[in-house]
Amino acid sequence: MTFNLTILGSGSATPILNRHPTAQVIAIEGDYFLIDCGEATQYRLMENHLRPGRLKYIFISHLHGDHYFGLVPLLSSLNLSGRTDDLWLFGPRGLGEIITTQFRYSDTKLNFPLHFQETDPHQPAQILDHPNVRIETIPLQHRIDCTGFLFREKNRKRKLIAEKLPADLPVAFYRHLKDGNDVLDDLGQVLYRAEDYTVPAPPARSYAFCSDTRYNEAMFDQIRGVDLLYHEASFLDDMEALSEKYFHSTARQAALTAVQAEVGRLMIGHFSSRYKTTEEFLLQARSVFPDTVLAVEGETTEV
Amino acid sequence: MTFNLTILGSGSATPILNRHPTAQVIAIEGDYFLIDCGEATQYRLMENHLRPGRLKYIFISHLHGDHYFGLVPLLSSLNLSGRTDDLWLFGPRGLGEIITTQFRYSDTKLNFPLHFQETDPHQPAQILDHPNVRIETIPLQHRIDCTGFLFREKNRKRKLIAEKLPADLPVAFYRHLKDGNDVLDDLGQVLYRAEDYTVPAPPARSYAFCSDTRYNEAMFDQIRGVDLLYHEASFLDDMEALSEKYFHSTARQAALTAVQAEVGRLMIGHFSSRYKTTEEFLLQARSVFPDTVLAVEGETTEV
Repeated sequence: MTFNLTILGSGSATPILNRHPTAQVIAIEGDYFLIDCGEATQYRLMENHLRPGRLKYIFISHLHGDHYFGLVPLLSSLNLSGRTDDLWLFGPRGLGEIITTQFRYSDTKLNFPLHFQETDPHQPAQILDHPNVRIETIPLQHRIDCTGFLFREKNRKRKLIAEKLPADLPVAFYRHLKDGNDVLDDLGQVLYRAEDYTVPAPPARSYAFCSDTRYNEAMFDQIRGVDLLYHEASFLDDMEALSEKYFHSTARQAALTAVQAEVGRLMIGHFSSRYKTTEEFLLQARSVFPDTVLAVEGETTEV
Repeated sequence: MTFNLTILGSGSATPILNRHPTAQVIAIEGDYFLIDCGEATQYRLMENHLRPGRLKYIFISHLHGDHYFGLVPLLSSLNLSGRTDDLWLFGPRGLGEIITTQFRYSDTKLNFPLHFQETDPHQPAQILDHPNVRIETIPLQHRIDCTGFLFREKNRKRKLIAEKLPADLPVAFYRHLKDGNDVLDDLGQVLYRAEDYTVPAPPARSYAFCSDTRYNEAMFDQIRGVDLLYHEASFLDDMEALSEKYFHSTARQAALTAVQAEVGRLMIGHFSSRYKTTEEFLLQARSVFPDTVLAVEGETTEV
């Protein structure tokens, strides 16, 4: 199953050229899940050849502008493009009012159903049960209400052993075997046993998005063992006091979170505009948690 | 006096790569006047090396998103940059609510005074009397309330005749002569007559911004004889029926407006995303009004 992450923005609140505010796309099979939607995210989608028509779910972490200013423009453009498919939106209380206020004054009527569900910033909760993935909110510690999002793959299929497959078995039965079901004849006798022609499903993958937040021990149990953790790292180590004051994290704190929560890999982003380069973030994080990468705009990573 | 226009966006509602929504900067001496503020205008300012700190006045024509989605992001960034200078904002009823709703949820308190004045979409009105320019609204005919903006230069100075200036005249008196005042000695006797050392001030220049609107005879008298008219041309001639339906103009109608209002030069913009190139707009407009140019992003034009 396709399960990958494309970074559209790696910056923070103050914009600089060539570093954009937070937005990322999770692609799961044919569906796009957009996490946060900073200003001009729709241009980033175009640049990365990600068709907006495939967006089905949008998740907004919090109402600081660098995480949602691109949302109403994106909804407007989806409407102008003639979209009629349902769109699901998850975000903090107030996001609905922000959208309806703007659409009221522009006299905009959406031609597609927009389903908005408020997130609870205080308790983790499952907010979506998709055929391929379950999604929970992660309460974060920021200046205003803020949640991360945890994606857990489900229903991974057994894998066919290609060289063992009988030549006379119709392709239509492959799915049957991958679901773990034996192939029977008309009398109910087993013709082909699933366990003879397949190997067990690989473990379900998981992805946690944690931005914006200060060092947040309360979430460790919830995200423990995820394959990939995206954690904000707005500042370098020497700015820890300022970082704490603004409810942000340093590169070292992001890496410490990765260690404590025993995750597989760590990706850091949300770099403050005061830093023109990001190499030092990587060095500081890797000194604590070696399997760290930087969020790089335009790059796609398998989860 | 500096009086020029820089185009930041030449597109219309549906975004395409390399053509941005409406925004333009009038520079008058050291002050910037921003007209409309489509999504990501702050990035266009950076790309064109226009310092946001010099923005003093912002004018929003109407509340379709391609004319204002970049405003709240810009105000946020001005605030983050530590601005304390006053900023004046002119725009339709509702703009204030849109701003305060978003700042309420982001818990943003502006550190600079933002003075918002509602525009009247029905009657022309002077909205700003700046030391160098007077600015009026122009009622336009669009689907929702919409005004253009008319800039009329004032107080143009007489020009010094360099080769005639006496070598012993202190530079401090140049301004005196340019204001048309004679230089006197201590007894009140005329030493240097302004009309001997200067030529009369050139005629005051004027600029009219008219977007979005359908062909609008009601404004001809107000904009008659302006030096430069920016008029929207969303569509080519063959789309006149659609254009009329959506309260937009064709290239030919923009040019016809220039003819009827006897303007000096015409600039057309707000091109629909359905057109990948714009040469045909220029051909159609020039066949009616030869002194037409296209709005080109990043280009600066003297008014």
